[in-house]
Amino acid sequence: MADQARTVRNKQVILVSYPKDWVIEDNLRIEETDIHLSLKPGCGHVLLQTLWASVDPYLRWRMQESKEGLYAQPFQLGKPIVVRAVSKVIASDHQEIHVGEFVAGPISLGEYALVEGGQGLWKVDPNLAPLSYYLGLLGAPGLTAWAGLNLIGEPKPGDEFFVSAAAGAVGLVVGQLAKLKGCRVVGSVGSDDKVELLKKEFGYDDAFNYKKEVNWDATLGKYFPQGIDIYFENVGGRMLEAVLNHINLNGRIPVCGMLSSYNQEWTEQEGVRNLQNILEKCVKMQGFIVSHHFHHLSTYIQEVAGYLKEGKIKYKEHVTEGLENFAKSFIGMLKGANFGKVVVHISDP
Amino acid sequence: MADQARTVRNKQVILVSYPKDWVIEDNLRIEETDIHLSLKPGCGHVLLQTLWASVDPYLRWRMQESKEGLYAQPFQLGKPIVVRAVSKVIASDHQEIHVGEFVAGPISLGEYALVEGGQGLWKVDPNLAPLSYYLGLLGAPGLTAWAGLNLIGEPKPGDEFFVSAAAGAVGLVVGQLAKLKGCRVVGSVGSDDKVELLKKEFGYDDAFNYKKEVNWDATLGKYFPQGIDIYFENVGGRMLEAVLNHINLNGRIPVCGMLSSYNQEWTEQEGVRNLQNILEKCVKMQGFIVSHHFHHLSTYIQEVAGYLKEGKIKYKEHVTEGLENFAKSFIGMLKGANFGKVVVHISDP
Repeated sequence: MADQARTVRNKQVILVSYPKDWVIEDNLRIEETDIHLSLKPGCGHVLLQTLWASVDPYLRWRMQESKEGLYAQPFQLGKPIVVRAVSKVIASDHQEIHVGEFVAGPISLGEYALVEGGQGLWKVDPNLAPLSYYLGLLGAPGLTAWAGLNLIGEPKPGDEFFVSAAAGAVGLVVGQLAKLKGCRVVGSVGSDDKVELLKKEFGYDDAFNYKKEVNWDATLGKYFPQGIDIYFENVGGRMLEAVLNHINLNGRIPVCGMLSSYNQEWTEQEGVRNLQNILEKCVKMQGFIVSHHFHHLSTYIQEVAGYLKEGKIKYKEHVTEGLENFAKSFIGMLKGANFGKVVVHISDP
Repeated sequence: MADQARTVRNKQVILVSYPKDWVIEDNLRIEETDIHLSLKPGCGHVLLQTLWASVDPYLRWRMQESKEGLYAQPFQLGKPIVVRAVSKVIASDHQEIHVGEFVAGPISLGEYALVEGGQGLWKVDPNLAPLSYYLGLLGAPGLTAWAGLNLIGEPKPGDEFFVSAAAGAVGLVVGQLAKLKGCRVVGSVGSDDKVELLKKEFGYDDAFNYKKEVNWDATLGKYFPQGIDIYFENVGGRMLEAVLNHINLNGRIPVCGMLSSYNQEWTEQEGVRNLQNILEKCVKMQGFIVSHHFHHLSTYIQEVAGYLKEGKIKYKEHVTEGLENFAKSFIGMLKGANFGKVVVHISDP
């Protein structure tokens, strides 16, 4: 009890300004405040020590001025950003979460975090996989890949499958899952090294470096002579337009991300000019968020942990050390410096 | 037999050039050829006298150069255009279609038409409703409204429902069907008269004249303070963009038509710049074609004929007389001159 009551300094990552276009390091700042490592009884709160923090593209569009009707509210200036993390429970007033257990879920990003009512936390098993995997393959990005592919993409053997940002946390998983469903899988990435890795290590049938292709319409014609049945959308903009010119009848487009549009006001975007293909080819294009599908998470984890054990799926992380390097890591990911899931290692249990 | 063997002149409507932007009368021409009013036995063909021809927006985009992957091939130059019609059977080698019966289905547009194997024809009941209704309320446009609304729109009581081209053949039906499902229904149309008719005679909760509104984004904010749950898309372009700024979480957009884009090459279109809303609001946008849903037609007709009898649904036609006025009627419809379903009366049985 004496130990839990002590006060320590807690470094947090604070949003100090909204990015104008690209995120810059000055948009975020490390601040230290005191935190009491004890809990008022009766509230069901949980106090956590952060082990691993997840770096994800969607954080970018939570860094914007508020507007109506979004499924997740923008981050507030002057407050810590909220990210997914894997943490160790160091104090708990929650009935089902106990000191010493490991949990994943959203936290206000810092070395320590108080989670009111334990909201959004789920326990993770350190014996099934390395803890950081619960931020990627066995967490929200993996479930994102699974839900978009299966619930919207509805893959069938022989389907032609295309994914953009294919070397990202979601792309890397979704391509392999599509392959396991019998699809022919092609991905677009931003470097030749990534092309090689996808083909040699991750079982992609093909891949191309979009930065070296001058006419994406022609590129897709070359890589998809039979057209595209499923496009797993991570980038939007001109790549979506090119895809719509090659989509097949009854094509499906799960919309997981639109990276190309995160840095601009919508009025400044180049619009997509060929949506008529959605009509002419009876295409289904559907946005989704993983939080609507968390009830599938434990089923998903069992399935994919099995694939992992059997060597049917591979995984790769891009690790940065230290809370103070979170901003750098995030900016690097937005610019495509990573291969695989980006995580920041904060502390050891 | 002597009578059936006679040869008559048959006026047909031939496509002589593809429109550059708006259809002009010179794109179509009436040509006369001989037709034998008899059939070679053993082929299952059916010979029809055309009574009513249907004038529909989708004909516009079949008047374009061929491109890959379309669900319906473009019309060929020098050949009659193919339209939906109600006809009387004047000769038949088909087992289930008999002389004197009435049928609906696609024909090469003329006073008479040969339908090989009776393909696409379905029998219609002159006692249930006026024959021309099988081109609209009780035909493909009605089923289009029903399928888009129910299979993609998934309406629930209290949903906010918006339809563009609301006084067209499909719009007029879909608004009333949405109303019967308990939605609040608002339509956009191109004249004040249409606004009044929709509100006074067709049970729309509200309607506006898009030509008088300078900022559609603001207009939709005014007519949909609670946002839009279902947008039944008939026009595309800037109206779609405005809708995407007001769509609610889990919104649905059945894509039935994109009138605004039929007159231009896709590269000349103004693009839609805010597709990010599809992601952020988890929107489903889906194109569809009525021919995939014809197996629902008889169920649909029974249901809607019941509504018609009970006065729960109203219907209105815009009738033009004579095959030679088909082009005029079509151009008028594309420019919004009609209220309700546009049909051309060709002959009496």
